[in-house]
Amino acid sequence: MSPSRMDGKTTVRELMKIVTRFRDSRDWRKYDTPRNLAGSICIEAAELLEHFQWKTDEQAAQMLRNPEELAEISNELADVIIYCLGFSDTLSLDVSNAVQRKLKRNGEKYPATRKDSQ
Amino acid sequence: MSPSRMDGKTTVRELMKIVTRFRDSRDWRKYDTPRNLAGSICIEAAELLEHFQWKTDEQAAQMLRNPEELAEISNELADVIIYCLGFSDTLSLDVSNAVQRKLKRNGEKYPATRKDSQ
Amino acid sequence: MSPSRMDGKTTVRELMKIVTRFRDSRDWRKYDTPRNLAGSICIEAAELLEHFQWKTDEQAAQMLRNPEELAEISNELADVIIYCLGFSDTLSLDVSNAVQRKLKRNGEKYPATRKDSQ
Amino acid sequence: MSPSRMDGKTTVRELMKIVTRFRDSRDWRKYDTPRNLAGSICIEAAELLEHFQWKTDEQAAQMLRNPEELAEISNELADVIIYCLGFSDTLSLDVSNAVQRKLKRNGEKYPATRKDSQ
Repeated sequence: MSPSRMDGKTTVRELMKIVTRFRDSRDWRKYDTPRNLAGSICIEAAELLEHFQWKTDEQAAQMLRNPEELAEISNELADVIIYCLGFSDTLSLDVSNAVQRKLKRNGEKYPATRKDSQ
Repeated sequence: MSPSRMDGKTTVRELMKIVTRFRDSRDWRKYDTPRNLAGSICIEAAELLEHFQWKTDEQAAQMLRNPEELAEISNELADVIIYCLGFSDTLSLDVSNAVQRKLKRNGEKYPATRKDSQ
Repeated sequence: MSPSRMDGKTTVRELMKIVTRFRDSRDWRKYDTPRNLAGSICIEAAELLEHFQWKTDEQAAQMLRNPEELAEISNELADVIIYCLGFSDTLSLDVSNAVQRKLKRNGEKYPATRKDSQ
Repeated sequence: MSPSRMDGKTTVRELMKIVTRFRDSRDWRKYDTPRNLAGSICIEAAELLEHFQWKTDEQAAQMLRNPEELAEISNELADVIIYCLGFSDTLSLDVSNAVQRKLKRNGEKYPATRKDSQ
């Protein structure tokens, strides 16, 4: 496994630990109110969107083939996820369970259209 | 382990698979352009923030002690994460690696203040 | 002048007064901290964006030809502007001046390409 | 009237003209699809919110007493408003009318609590 592919062997809990250890080693927990974290998720999400502004779909595709620009976008996504994991930790939420429950609810609203799945 | 605590045994890849299987069983992949997903992350992040608007810190804390309101907030967070995982899948990003690289960069900017960590 | 075209005879100050009078007649000024207002601008902006999500450009154009949908979009835009005006009032900002100064700065970065203007 | 107070003598239409003239003198109208403008309103709103992140109310108040920081915040607000006016122009919306209609609707939901007003 390439060192850059960690998702297959990293649990969500482990990833959350990486984030909270970083936060705690800087004594930043005190800033992490749920409101502040929700605001930060918004701010970082908008920075991610900014990379796609004013570009045609073709220009966006070209940007995504550029390794340096893709790395920047990966960094912006990481920021969103870091705050999402901090938020989950602060409220003792279980991310995997939250995702499953939400998809279940979505599935009741929008049933699967393919027989072979979910 | 309680059925509601899955993060300790679910890898990021497995969680991503849950999300992409849901998407593909509805033939929704075609809508998932990186730009659309970035927009959706923004929109869901703002819905999460909305729960904290116009509340004092005390009112926010009270809201978070209410199981039904907490479940709603957990649903909003799940929406953000679902789109983040869809975005990662679409661009073949490795979330765990992206988070680690971003924290490394942040760590160069803000060194740890505690000796016993990172 | 049609009753629905007011922009030509309404000053920015008058529009701001309409907004602050509404706020004050409900005793809502106390909630209008700059931080809360900035958060609300974000939230309403995302609701506006939501109308365009998952639509092709053609579907968006069709939506905008539907008077009821256009009225909804106009309502979302109004929400953004209402909070922008509340924000300006709270901080005693002059909107017109702020816009002119910002465009001047933008103009230094991006000079006009047409001879006949700005 | 101080040159920095223009809101009392500038109509919304005049402010919109300032914005569209700037846009047209750079041939930027072609980028101003409603979807792009809605995205830009989101992005700029998040930049405004960013100034308030991680600050206590006291720290935010101190920031707002600093003329340079206030000027930066005024610039961010101007960006939101510039895109709102561009959006209104693109869809031929009347801002003043939209605000009045939206407040009327809000007023039905939340009646005024003070006798002497609205």
